[in-house]
Amino acid sequence: MTQTHVTIREVGLRDGLQIETPIPLSAKLELLAAVAATGVREVEATAFVSPTKVPSMADAAELATHLHNYADIEFSALVASPNGAKRAVAAGLRSIEYVVAADDAFSTANVGRTSAEATAQIDEIVTIAHAAPGSPATVEVIIATAWDSPFEGPTPPRRVVEIAAAARDRGADRISIADTIGTTTPGRVTALSAQVLEVIGDLPLGAHFHNTRGAGLASAYAAVTAGVTRLDAAVGGLGGCPFAPGATGNIATEDLVYLLTDSGCTVDVDLQAAIAAAEVARSAVGHDLPGALLRAGDRIRSR
Amino acid sequence: MTQTHVTIREVGLRDGLQIETPIPLSAKLELLAAVAATGVREVEATAFVSPTKVPSMADAAELATHLHNYADIEFSALVASPNGAKRAVAAGLRSIEYVVAADDAFSTANVGRTSAEATAQIDEIVTIAHAAPGSPATVEVIIATAWDSPFEGPTPPRRVVEIAAAARDRGADRISIADTIGTTTPGRVTALSAQVLEVIGDLPLGAHFHNTRGAGLASAYAAVTAGVTRLDAAVGGLGGCPFAPGATGNIATEDLVYLLTDSGCTVDVDLQAAIAAAEVARSAVGHDLPGALLRAGDRIRSR
Repeated sequence: MTQTHVTIREVGLRDGLQIETPIPLSAKLELLAAVAATGVREVEATAFVSPTKVPSMADAAELATHLHNYADIEFSALVASPNGAKRAVAAGLRSIEYVVAADDAFSTANVGRTSAEATAQIDEIVTIAHAAPGSPATVEVIIATAWDSPFEGPTPPRRVVEIAAAARDRGADRISIADTIGTTTPGRVTALSAQVLEVIGDLPLGAHFHNTRGAGLASAYAAVTAGVTRLDAAVGGLGGCPFAPGATGNIATEDLVYLLTDSGCTVDVDLQAAIAAAEVARSAVGHDLPGALLRAGDRIRSR
Repeated sequence: MTQTHVTIREVGLRDGLQIETPIPLSAKLELLAAVAATGVREVEATAFVSPTKVPSMADAAELATHLHNYADIEFSALVASPNGAKRAVAAGLRSIEYVVAADDAFSTANVGRTSAEATAQIDEIVTIAHAAPGSPATVEVIIATAWDSPFEGPTPPRRVVEIAAAARDRGADRISIADTIGTTTPGRVTALSAQVLEVIGDLPLGAHFHNTRGAGLASAYAAVTAGVTRLDAAVGGLGGCPFAPGATGNIATEDLVYLLTDSGCTVDVDLQAAIAAAEVARSAVGHDLPGALLRAGDRIRSR
């Protein structure tokens, strides 16, 4: 393939830690330092959501006070409502991720609003973000359950395209499509990416995959081939226990870096530093992680 | 993508068990029965190689006496020399896989001959196979270390193309390219597949991947997209312990079936039966296996 630059956003600190037992802020800061040392330019730092529902993100505002130490990194925060966006902006975040699930059942279970209601709130989120004091914040609309819903089964691609078009019309700065439950595969990724790219004009398209059924990296590569230029990944494959039924780990940053650079793409993340950060992540959560390079290493070994 | 039929060859009984502590013939026959129940049309049954070097394959001739029970399956055996081909043919096998490593260091370590010497022996293997009593046997030339050698680093694609052309000229019935040490990635798979397809005319091209660095399924899908129609896989990802450094498991049959069928390809293997066979494989070897669907299942689960 032609040489493509892929922006990897490190999501270990948010999506990776979200389902873990909360770890101390000091451990998060240690992981952040290791992640920053990889050269990564974008990091999903935390989520401004309900501390009761997501206790692992209860320290969002406090964590945010440490981010000014990394001037070269764009930090983002996930929000699920206008109130969350206000909190994120007030805490100094200038990159907001707003999730809209493509199906009603998941959307209602997740945020208590239908997909259409969540879509309608994009306006308010964009207004809050773009009016942030000092400098405007950007808004990325993440379309969750973009391929499958755990409740409703396959998501009609038309519905994803509608949300993407609405996000564009309502002033979103970026769009991404997320395989929330780790069921999609390259064939469907290629098809949906092409359809979404057709309607979003010049907005950058990102994608988010889990490796639950082994197809996460294959889907990520298919996305890049289809024109996606931004991928989420978490060091070590944080985001689920590999030994539990239904494990839902993110694709591992270091495995993605290996695959992309060996395939001729360029990335901002250094492979050795990403493996080192994955080791920090493993220590932080206190259990093994599914990343392949954590076991195999990046070097060719003799038998 | 357009709908493509992919022939999956089950290699769990040979490549999957090769590095395991030898298991009893009865356990292999139980695994074979489970594999046959998947609907798979091709099975790599065993290897006719040195029983001293590969004790897990010492029962090759005895195993072969049981294969007539599965009339719908084409069974193949791996050989490393003309003598092995003679033994395979005498045992009733009518599909021979002959391995030629693309680099001298690996070839010499593996079979005591340079890559050119191993290539030169294709003639003799083909003669033995095609003259098999009763019905002629076919010969597939497997080009090992097709992307990287553990000793020499990256393999020049030109060398792989030369071996493929020699195999075609010397009467091979099929060609395949193998990522012996699990280091390749989709970009290089696409490139090499195209180059090899250019020189082999109408011969079917297969590919063989390990998931050592997490890229095995991504590479397999890239191969299919490039025109490869045959893929090796092992139930459960047999072929290496996932918890050991340098783990080298094959891509898991059931994970491959999930990815290919969900992407719009057709295969002969039933997904549920493949998961069941992976469970039999796990019991047979007595340790966990890396296949993703063994943990996650093939169904969408609610949270």
